[in-house]
Amino acid sequence: MFELRHHLMAAKQASRRAATLNANIKHQVLLALADAIDARRATLQAANAEDLAAAERAGLAAPLRDRLALTDKTLTAMVEGLREIAAQPDPVGEIAELRRQPNGLLVGRMRIPLGVVAIIYESRPNVTVDAAALCLKAGNAVVLRGGSEAFHSNQALGQLMGAVLESFGLPPALVTVIPTPDRAIVAELLACDDLVDLVIPRGGKELIRFVAGHSRIPVIKHYEGVCHTYLDASADPAIAVPVVVNAKAQRPATCNATETLLIHAAAVETCLLPTVQALVAAGVELRVCERTQQALRERGYASDRIVAAQPSDFGCEFLDNILAVKIVDDYAAAVAHIQTYGSQHTEAIITRDHATAMRFLRDIDSSTVVVNASTRFADGQQLGLGAEIGISTTKLHAFGPMGARELTTQKFVVLGEGQTRT
Amino acid sequence: MFELRHHLMAAKQASRRAATLNANIKHQVLLALADAIDARRATLQAANAEDLAAAERAGLAAPLRDRLALTDKTLTAMVEGLREIAAQPDPVGEIAELRRQPNGLLVGRMRIPLGVVAIIYESRPNVTVDAAALCLKAGNAVVLRGGSEAFHSNQALGQLMGAVLESFGLPPALVTVIPTPDRAIVAELLACDDLVDLVIPRGGKELIRFVAGHSRIPVIKHYEGVCHTYLDASADPAIAVPVVVNAKAQRPATCNATETLLIHAAAVETCLLPTVQALVAAGVELRVCERTQQALRERGYASDRIVAAQPSDFGCEFLDNILAVKIVDDYAAAVAHIQTYGSQHTEAIITRDHATAMRFLRDIDSSTVVVNASTRFADGQQLGLGAEIGISTTKLHAFGPMGARELTTQKFVVLGEGQTRT
Repeated sequence: MFELRHHLMAAKQASRRAATLNANIKHQVLLALADAIDARRATLQAANAEDLAAAERAGLAAPLRDRLALTDKTLTAMVEGLREIAAQPDPVGEIAELRRQPNGLLVGRMRIPLGVVAIIYESRPNVTVDAAALCLKAGNAVVLRGGSEAFHSNQALGQLMGAVLESFGLPPALVTVIPTPDRAIVAELLACDDLVDLVIPRGGKELIRFVAGHSRIPVIKHYEGVCHTYLDASADPAIAVPVVVNAKAQRPATCNATETLLIHAAAVETCLLPTVQALVAAGVELRVCERTQQALRERGYASDRIVAAQPSDFGCEFLDNILAVKIVDDYAAAVAHIQTYGSQHTEAIITRDHATAMRFLRDIDSSTVVVNASTRFADGQQLGLGAEIGISTTKLHAFGPMGARELTTQKFVVLGEGQTRT
Repeated sequence: MFELRHHLMAAKQASRRAATLNANIKHQVLLALADAIDARRATLQAANAEDLAAAERAGLAAPLRDRLALTDKTLTAMVEGLREIAAQPDPVGEIAELRRQPNGLLVGRMRIPLGVVAIIYESRPNVTVDAAALCLKAGNAVVLRGGSEAFHSNQALGQLMGAVLESFGLPPALVTVIPTPDRAIVAELLACDDLVDLVIPRGGKELIRFVAGHSRIPVIKHYEGVCHTYLDASADPAIAVPVVVNAKAQRPATCNATETLLIHAAAVETCLLPTVQALVAAGVELRVCERTQQALRERGYASDRIVAAQPSDFGCEFLDNILAVKIVDDYAAAVAHIQTYGSQHTEAIITRDHATAMRFLRDIDSSTVVVNASTRFADGQQLGLGAEIGISTTKLHAFGPMGARELTTQKFVVLGEGQTRT
């Protein structure tokens, strides 16, 4: 029988070791992990083949089987990802804002690991390696609970990582891949707030709701992205058209793809038709409000890719080549729409007006707010964080893309010369 | 009937207004609050008298009645606290680390309010005003649920704050004092993760466990302080003696008072006797390990304030003039003891050895780590944060004393010139 608490205690113990590892050792371990994955492709793919065969027997849909597959390309991306994480600066140990206080004490904040981080995720086995590497970089121990479909792949990756850690004389409990597909284990884990410092659920709504609803441990949710792009009255069509097409169609199934396009009534004349034409040419289905239908009719434009929007299309995360479109009266109506239907993930404005751009930055309460660029840039790599563990839609601790630094915290350090408090 | 969700929706709405208030207005509101409390002492004390009478009828212990009382001194401290918070810099709107990325985008992090913060606390009515002021400073709306013993006092403070907000044309829902002592309301509140962004429980273990166990909203715990002071082999008795006495006896009932003294075996000769004598002279009861008993016997020292420690004395938060004392073999044993019995609140080392001091800063996983000074300095005011809402023992988001800045978060802001992702 798998004794979860026993493993979590070992992880807690290992996290103390991880916290004191210097940057050089972590760098070497990450490079060795990359080399080991590169060298053991056949072993990993053999384990993955078991999962793929089971998925086929179980009648899993083809896109889900694709996400499960450890192809040569996936493995190469894993290896490159590890080398990138190795090359990032070490976030641990930095002392910020060391200042002398009126009482004579030198007071600063030292960046430290969180301790034990649990990641609960679904099918992709590459998350197993990315998440372990980022947690290790940040000086944490990690407990990984992947989807049952990827069970054999994750076990093989876990064994490989354990062997690399042991070759450096490090405790394999730094990376624990939970060795059972038993679902009850997740509920058990979420009660262990004495041993686990953070839980990150990554996956569908149901998984995230379950974790948030049952956890006694702090949770950072990586929730849905209902992202909006808003064409302001002064939007430049030369910017609006390519940015909107990119935001929707470059990779429609990602959480930072735009799901709703809002158009200021005064931008209809300049922007509507070229934007709609470009979207249709890119294969996007448009679900448009009545005013948009009317405006297109007036301009003599028709396409079978354009349908009337249902109320449920606004606020919907299509994750597909579908875009809801709405004409709004003014800036305030655009902001109000986003506040009502958005998911506080990523919102963009296209405008030539400086004051409106600055106002949008302040008014929009989303983890990434973009002026004159594609929502698709809401990504740790693109925003300069390096590899990301995901995109937090929880405001606490980290809001938006999370890299290694966001897997750490700060404690106060106080240097005295015998001071007492009066 | 009190409709909690209705009030929380109003708070959410008000939080959007709060987020856009500029620093000047918040400054004026906080000063007006201070003036209003100063001017309405009689009204507040009349409401408080109802609570005090009820407390006496209910047979509440004298120390608890003391905490409940709005004396002239308490009210003056409230007024001064508000003026201090008003004078602090505004944390909202600061854009940090604005850097150009390789893709040409200017990317930074803007500090923003959390939204709606709920504080669940026990008897002291001064928390009502402090917490509201800090939340307002940080641009949040606040929902306050104080102890039922302070019900009338909190209602009177809430009405006063609402009137001041209205006099500035601001929504009174910026500060909601829950107008019912019904306990079921807490459980109901903890389920409203769509309307409340953060819950801070302040009070006894039972309250904190209840909140952490039932909340779907992120929680920052303000838990117990089992603080340690460790006299290293090289501790200077001229520093050790006054610092230990201050750490224990200056205000023994606070969470940052030292509860256990650890002494390196090599420091017994220089530090034990003078430290013990000074503590006994300060009225402290010592609960000492066998080695300490033996060492004191060998030195011919006896006092009826010294008793044999029970195992439960280590890890105990006495909150009283009681100190557990233990001699340890070496530095590693001291760290191991702290890891086993501490509560990750505040730990101090007294040492002349630079390398050991630096090692302690790194090895100790507490929210405040102190070298050669009293643990009593673990306090927002003393560490330069200004007034504090409490001391977090949760690593996520904020670890240690929390001021107005710790009631905010950061979002990413991205300034482009039409960039699309490739």
